[in-house]
Amino acid sequence: MLLGQVAVILTPPFHPAHAGEPYKPHLELFVLTYGALVAQLCKDYEKDEDVNTFLDRMGYGIGVRLIDDFLARSAVKKCRSYSETADMIAQVAFKMYLGVTPSVSCSNTAGNEFSLILDKNPLVDFVEELPAERASLCYCNLLCGVIRGALEMVQLAAEVTFLQDRLKGDAVTEIGITFLRKAEDRKHKRNK
Amino acid sequence: MLLGQVAVILTPPFHPAHAGEPYKPHLELFVLTYGALVAQLCKDYEKDEDVNTFLDRMGYGIGVRLIDDFLARSAVKKCRSYSETADMIAQVAFKMYLGVTPSVSCSNTAGNEFSLILDKNPLVDFVEELPAERASLCYCNLLCGVIRGALEMVQLAAEVTFLQDRLKGDAVTEIGITFLRKAEDRKHKRNK
Repeated sequence: MLLGQVAVILTPPFHPAHAGEPYKPHLELFVLTYGALVAQLCKDYEKDEDVNTFLDRMGYGIGVRLIDDFLARSAVKKCRSYSETADMIAQVAFKMYLGVTPSVSCSNTAGNEFSLILDKNPLVDFVEELPAERASLCYCNLLCGVIRGALEMVQLAAEVTFLQDRLKGDAVTEIGITFLRKAEDRKHKRNK
Repeated sequence: MLLGQVAVILTPPFHPAHAGEPYKPHLELFVLTYGALVAQLCKDYEKDEDVNTFLDRMGYGIGVRLIDDFLARSAVKKCRSYSETADMIAQVAFKMYLGVTPSVSCSNTAGNEFSLILDKNPLVDFVEELPAERASLCYCNLLCGVIRGALEMVQLAAEVTFLQDRLKGDAVTEIGITFLRKAEDRKHKRNK
């Protein structure tokens, strides 16, 4: 049985859990493609870190292009703070492309660290379980790369990582975004 | 400039060519993700054949799952001939998931070889050009794997390959499907 060879176990997309929801064939195709991609990467790369890196770099490549689409379609204005930017990512970008709205919280007093909490993550809709030997796999690492790439295109350097993941047994799925001070800011500070 | 490192050159999704068309954010996300995947694979795998194989195998993994969704959503009846099956792939499946309808023609007298001709291929919407050193790359090879995987789940063995590709300068994009005789058929014939 070929399904047994697939490292990441996926259920078929037509699942009772989705009954009654509006059918979005393109989103299903995207989510299923993503699952098949991770499964294939797990076959080809032995180390979880290599899979994570592939997904992050690939996400980055999406983000640097998706930002043009996002800015044109959403007609949003320039954000004036890290806080506004984080809200924009959660309330406009996630909503537009994945159909969900994570909640946002600021996690430090400096005001440059934010958490996006996802109650629902469509990207894992068809994932039944991750294999036990893939403990370090960040299944959704693509999202981190997308956010990082998109932010870089609007001159915002950021570190984006998964802090918690329901797939790994955590209570919620949490993406951490740390905005890094711009080179000019640091220089400016030093010269003061 | 990081874009220069990407082997496959993609334009941003918001492009004048698409002005006036209904906006399908999930399809754009899928197509852009696919482009980023191929670009990343081209960085990681030296040989075009390895990229093609990765895409085909990944597509297979999608096809074996997508078929359940397709049968449930489309409510189609059992096909009684290879010809009906080819029509179903073109007119119902392609339409449902990619929004286009290839034309179908039978290419041999035995009636088991078919061509799907795509006038429009959304999967290459953002591809500007393929790099010259990637002459053997089958950019859309995922589609072949998807069709092969889906057919196998309804007990139809088939070979699916790209016969022509506009990305490579051909006049049209053509996917060839050759239905292979079932093992029982061959056995039956031998015993006659």
